[in-house]
Amino acid sequence: MELSDEVFSLHEKNTGVLAIQGELPVTNRQQLAQAYTPGVAKIAKLIEQDPTAKDKYTVSGKLVAIVTDGSAVLGLGNIGPAGGLPIVEGKALLYKQLAGVDAIPLTLQQGSAQDIVDTIVRLQDSFAGIHLEDIAAPKVFEIEEKLAQQLSIPVYHDDQTGTAIVVLAGLINAAKVVHKELTDLKVVINGMGAAGVATAKLLLAAGMKNLTLLDKDGVLRADDARFNHYQQQLAAQVPVPQGQTLAEVISNQDVFIGVSVADVLNAEQVQQMAKDPIIFALANPVPEIDPDVAHEAGAKVVATGSSQWPNQVNNILVFPGLFKGLIANGVKHVDLDLQLVIAQKLAALIQQPNQEAIVPGVFDSGVVDAVSQAVADYAQGK
Amino acid sequence: MELSDEVFSLHEKNTGVLAIQGELPVTNRQQLAQAYTPGVAKIAKLIEQDPTAKDKYTVSGKLVAIVTDGSAVLGLGNIGPAGGLPIVEGKALLYKQLAGVDAIPLTLQQGSAQDIVDTIVRLQDSFAGIHLEDIAAPKVFEIEEKLAQQLSIPVYHDDQTGTAIVVLAGLINAAKVVHKELTDLKVVINGMGAAGVATAKLLLAAGMKNLTLLDKDGVLRADDARFNHYQQQLAAQVPVPQGQTLAEVISNQDVFIGVSVADVLNAEQVQQMAKDPIIFALANPVPEIDPDVAHEAGAKVVATGSSQWPNQVNNILVFPGLFKGLIANGVKHVDLDLQLVIAQKLAALIQQPNQEAIVPGVFDSGVVDAVSQAVADYAQGK
Repeated sequence: MELSDEVFSLHEKNTGVLAIQGELPVTNRQQLAQAYTPGVAKIAKLIEQDPTAKDKYTVSGKLVAIVTDGSAVLGLGNIGPAGGLPIVEGKALLYKQLAGVDAIPLTLQQGSAQDIVDTIVRLQDSFAGIHLEDIAAPKVFEIEEKLAQQLSIPVYHDDQTGTAIVVLAGLINAAKVVHKELTDLKVVINGMGAAGVATAKLLLAAGMKNLTLLDKDGVLRADDARFNHYQQQLAAQVPVPQGQTLAEVISNQDVFIGVSVADVLNAEQVQQMAKDPIIFALANPVPEIDPDVAHEAGAKVVATGSSQWPNQVNNILVFPGLFKGLIANGVKHVDLDLQLVIAQKLAALIQQPNQEAIVPGVFDSGVVDAVSQAVADYAQGK
Repeated sequence: MELSDEVFSLHEKNTGVLAIQGELPVTNRQQLAQAYTPGVAKIAKLIEQDPTAKDKYTVSGKLVAIVTDGSAVLGLGNIGPAGGLPIVEGKALLYKQLAGVDAIPLTLQQGSAQDIVDTIVRLQDSFAGIHLEDIAAPKVFEIEEKLAQQLSIPVYHDDQTGTAIVVLAGLINAAKVVHKELTDLKVVINGMGAAGVATAKLLLAAGMKNLTLLDKDGVLRADDARFNHYQQQLAAQVPVPQGQTLAEVISNQDVFIGVSVADVLNAEQVQQMAKDPIIFALANPVPEIDPDVAHEAGAKVVATGSSQWPNQVNNILVFPGLFKGLIANGVKHVDLDLQLVIAQKLAALIQQPNQEAIVPGVFDSGVVDAVSQAVADYAQGK
């Protein structure tokens, strides 16, 4: 309760954890003329002629909007637009404090995917990038897809792309720890919401073919109407396994990736996996299997979503450096190629991967720079 | 050209004139837990139960959105959404530097009034207030009207309400200078766009009855389809004058208020006005009549929109203190009663009104505090 009281007072003191900072003084007429009128009229006229000049002379050239509708907050569910605000505001704080990126939290009334797309499209000239957060799948897939087509600024869905990148980075190093080839790994992904779908896509892009994909209704099938369009598309890209349930498909798997709910994997199932199992139990706050139980059952490498255990898969490793790099290099799309480059760069930060070190820590020096440098490398390579 | 170069370099140096400031450090796990997860989960849950708690614990409780679509920028016209950005960003800087109010610039793609209303309504939980700026009339009237009905946060259209308040404050003092009763003044208002309509409404609310209202098509008539709905409504509230044009109605007027275009009033017309004419020639950058010409023709008090002459009617006198007061006092509507209180308070800042001092200067100490105190007085009186 004490921590809680302190959290409330810290967030109340300044009405939230962000403020606007003015970069020019305005204490006399000359400064007013430079900061506002008539000075800005010259800039406004230039932008009228060349709208891209706004990126150079206005805050819109560096400002990221972190947009939620509060419909799918990790561990809390649909808590409404206002409820979603503290999370996106916290992320804006992390952007600033970790990477010097200027970001603002926006929450939208809930509505159709098209409503949310229309709102963001209408706002697009105000921002240098859109970070989508805590919007329920599958609606968010449609939103991200349409925005990527319609916007000329980058769109990034943290719950999807951030998770996928860190999972791949961790898998690259976990494969080294167990002396297996990444692309040979047999992987079961349990949970085909935003994070699961994006992770499956990125692992496929990394050349991994042996994926078994499950949602709460069992193994994804391309022709099964219980699965959404995005899940069906993925099912068509992977082998059709024998079995319907996790229990039926777990044997001989090299890797279990859980982006689902607590306690869905048990010790017996881990024992049925191939030699030196790799377990990513990312449900939060309670993982799919307790890491100690997993290790006792023979798991060689265990990662979770929590800082309570080693190997925390945390999107904070990605987004601050990502947008720092996107803005600095004028990159407009966070495509799979870019995601691969970032995952490789993050993995390479661990020089000697071992059971307890497959991903960097959130506060490790060099993480933000490595990720933003990955974006620069990608931009140069294009 | 030198001033111009300096303006461009000042606005380029930090990519605009604003930045986001983080109010909590995030350098270790404990701070992360307080600033972001798991700490914010407690706040998010509280807000889920009581959405109004967001105003206490998130930046949405203090953040003002300055919203434009760049369709009616003073002196520049319709320069597009991107073109409008430097002006709204400059205003956000003024909010911060003059009153400590946190505001962000937003520009919207142009569309119907309903499109803009829908977008702002959808965003409403993100902000403590909406400042509309440089949106073309009559569309902006509809936007403001609908937003005032649909939002539970204050909506303020600077081009309308800001101008109206400063004009009334100036008129209160100008009447003293010429020893006439405010409510006896015969006033012609030339220009019935956003500023003219709002000014006419506020003067009526102040008890002034002898208004003659003209737009570019001449005197407003309640039954004339050349005038929009808002103009027709106003026409129904004022006496029907003899004459159609400014030249035909100017004689014996005590006051000319121009919110129109350059050079529409001439010396002969000033000479036809009543004794000690009061001239507010607010077109910018070139007023309706040159102040020197007006004085030579007998004008007793002349105000303009420019800092080049005494008596600058400038909205900067209003908006920073207004939103400081609205947020501090939880006031949700900027109604005519509040506008009257602010105008009186602004006027009272000039203890000895004279020809060259009917409104405070933009940088006079006490302006912001007087306006925000006026809001507090209004809130207490309700």
